[in-house]
Amino acid sequence: MKGVIVQKYGGTSMGDIERIQNVARRVVEHKREGHPMVVVVSAMGKTTDHLVDMAIQLNPNPSAREMDMLLSTGEQVSISLLAMAIEGMGEKAISLTGAQCGIKTDAHHKKARIESIDTERIMEEFERDHIVIVAGFQGISDLGDITTLGRGGSDTTAVALAAAVSADKCEIYTDVDGVFTTDPRKVKEARQLPEISYDEMLELAKLGAGVLHPRSVELARKYSVQLVVRSSFNKNEGTRIVEVSKLEKVQVRGVTADQDIARISVSKVPDTPGVAFQLFSQLAKQNIHLDMIIQNLNHEEHNDISFTVPNDDLVEATSIATAFAEKVGGGEVIIKKDVSKVSIVGTGITGNAEVASLLFGTLSELGINIEMISTSEIKISCIIDAQSSDLAVTSLHNAFDLGLGL
Amino acid sequence: MKGVIVQKYGGTSMGDIERIQNVARRVVEHKREGHPMVVVVSAMGKTTDHLVDMAIQLNPNPSAREMDMLLSTGEQVSISLLAMAIEGMGEKAISLTGAQCGIKTDAHHKKARIESIDTERIMEEFERDHIVIVAGFQGISDLGDITTLGRGGSDTTAVALAAAVSADKCEIYTDVDGVFTTDPRKVKEARQLPEISYDEMLELAKLGAGVLHPRSVELARKYSVQLVVRSSFNKNEGTRIVEVSKLEKVQVRGVTADQDIARISVSKVPDTPGVAFQLFSQLAKQNIHLDMIIQNLNHEEHNDISFTVPNDDLVEATSIATAFAEKVGGGEVIIKKDVSKVSIVGTGITGNAEVASLLFGTLSELGINIEMISTSEIKISCIIDAQSSDLAVTSLHNAFDLGLGL
Repeated sequence: MKGVIVQKYGGTSMGDIERIQNVARRVVEHKREGHPMVVVVSAMGKTTDHLVDMAIQLNPNPSAREMDMLLSTGEQVSISLLAMAIEGMGEKAISLTGAQCGIKTDAHHKKARIESIDTERIMEEFERDHIVIVAGFQGISDLGDITTLGRGGSDTTAVALAAAVSADKCEIYTDVDGVFTTDPRKVKEARQLPEISYDEMLELAKLGAGVLHPRSVELARKYSVQLVVRSSFNKNEGTRIVEVSKLEKVQVRGVTADQDIARISVSKVPDTPGVAFQLFSQLAKQNIHLDMIIQNLNHEEHNDISFTVPNDDLVEATSIATAFAEKVGGGEVIIKKDVSKVSIVGTGITGNAEVASLLFGTLSELGINIEMISTSEIKISCIIDAQSSDLAVTSLHNAFDLGLGL
Repeated sequence: MKGVIVQKYGGTSMGDIERIQNVARRVVEHKREGHPMVVVVSAMGKTTDHLVDMAIQLNPNPSAREMDMLLSTGEQVSISLLAMAIEGMGEKAISLTGAQCGIKTDAHHKKARIESIDTERIMEEFERDHIVIVAGFQGISDLGDITTLGRGGSDTTAVALAAAVSADKCEIYTDVDGVFTTDPRKVKEARQLPEISYDEMLELAKLGAGVLHPRSVELARKYSVQLVVRSSFNKNEGTRIVEVSKLEKVQVRGVTADQDIARISVSKVPDTPGVAFQLFSQLAKQNIHLDMIIQNLNHEEHNDISFTVPNDDLVEATSIATAFAEKVGGGEVIIKKDVSKVSIVGTGITGNAEVASLLFGTLSELGINIEMISTSEIKISCIIDAQSSDLAVTSLHNAFDLGLGL
């Protein structure tokens, strides 16, 4: 028997009846090559927006549990329609909700994490020669409540299932050809990468490249899932995500910009031990992902603390920061929304002085002020003014010679 | 503690955002009177049609299991939206799918029957002072697959839950004021009945009055559930469904017409013992509801067998009848679609010669040919040509003096 293939199709790929038929044809092709198939799908195109819109009209602040109940229907519609389309082409298929597919999560609605996958039902369906169609983005809590995995959750579902059934590979189908050196909608010289390491992909994903959700890349790395990102609209090879050792050479792999963040600053925080911890632990308790954190020592007895958060978490983070400032007798809480985090990504670049110098030099020549800097093993990120974001990306892409050489 | 009230709101009552808010207000009103509440809802207005339309485009003959997977999302959207609306009004609510609510059914997709209800979750939610919002029309099979109860299934869900939680009453909210002597859209003299017996309601329901699904009435009778049919758009009292003993007097209670049926005739069936049984048992196995059955002895060695079936079952019934005719060496299978079943309903009327004579006399004077007749304890039905249906109903409504006396 050939190895299992897991495929994931996003909302654009499932956008209308014709596209669902296109997806069905692709799935059937792979099945007829002899592979047991698991297909993970998202909600059709604008379905989720429509549901959210109705919800907000009824209650501007709906409970997370009820939002999960509502939004999970989008994927349920997709799986049943795709199963029908495949059956119409003469192959056997069965659709499974997250719950039916054994995807157990914690009870953190809207941001649930997968705790375990019971593959019994999938294995039974393989024995019946069924193509298994799974609702992405959702699971079930111990209480029996429907949960959703948050943004990009369908990628996570696909990778987790690929790990659970020891799939040969996990193909993420999307509306672009693969992973690019930078956003091809903004920089026409952007070049598609044939391969990239998990760690690099992880940084690109976290930095808003938008092709793959970081949690899915983390999972793929952890369980060594063979991941491929490719287009559902053509037959191009896409981008393989591989181990570092398999890469040709170490280099700057891409430039990204993430404007979906905001900077929060709390001024004049008393400089006593553990005071910052109070703030950050409060934020962590609400599952708010803190990205960059900077404490500016004011040479007096207090600091300014600045950090960035995703825009989605801004309201909650602001209220936590405000409560914190009052409690510790800090100063103002200042929000800056029009910021962009521009980053260069590539294994080993942080240790390379030339790379850093070219980065800072390029921005400096453009007269762009760097508000915050953070680095990891494989990336350097700068918070700059949102207005300068596109210019910075294009210039860096050019400076690091990442383009097609047009 | 006051008694539990179960309310059911149909698709029209849940038709748009404003109507959902209207439903929420009604529910909250009852809750604030101190009643624990279970609210069963259908899919919003045209949702189901839209889903069916997409399905048919992908597969003209989709599997029943996948249709159930698809259609059950309609109610899931409704329950979450209603829960949000109620929470927005300051009351606590929780939405439950059929599965979460413990509604176990057989595995007969699209026509499943409720086998049991485990009320544990509902009781827990009552203890938390939650208004419990339940998805009508759906349940879960032993395999963990989502099933639907077929037409009018939300009524059945409501009554079954009312029985399971020993509710004080079960209110079925709809877009008409209650049960009428005949269809008020067709006969302007139609009068709303303040009360009616279970058996009469059952006949009216079966005969296509459309207000309540027969299975729900059967269940209500079996478990003595206090049933009320009323409008969700005003505060009128509606129609109570009561025990016969509580009715004022025996009389013709209503006139109905059902055009959603077809007649199937198999000619020249050999007159051997058990031959008709073969046909009818085949139909029964497919859960096809046979209504009227007539065997015309041809004074030779074979019979003509005619029966009526709901239009929904026509395709399947025809193919069974055709296979049967071939097997037993019968003659043609003849389908007649443009028929109407006109009925008068009232406890005790079958034993009343005057009633029968007025019925047949009225139709005869109008020159309407009666193709088939059937009677039960409380109704007399005639199959006539569909063209004469409206005339027959109006004339009978008048002849039996059921109107408002305008």
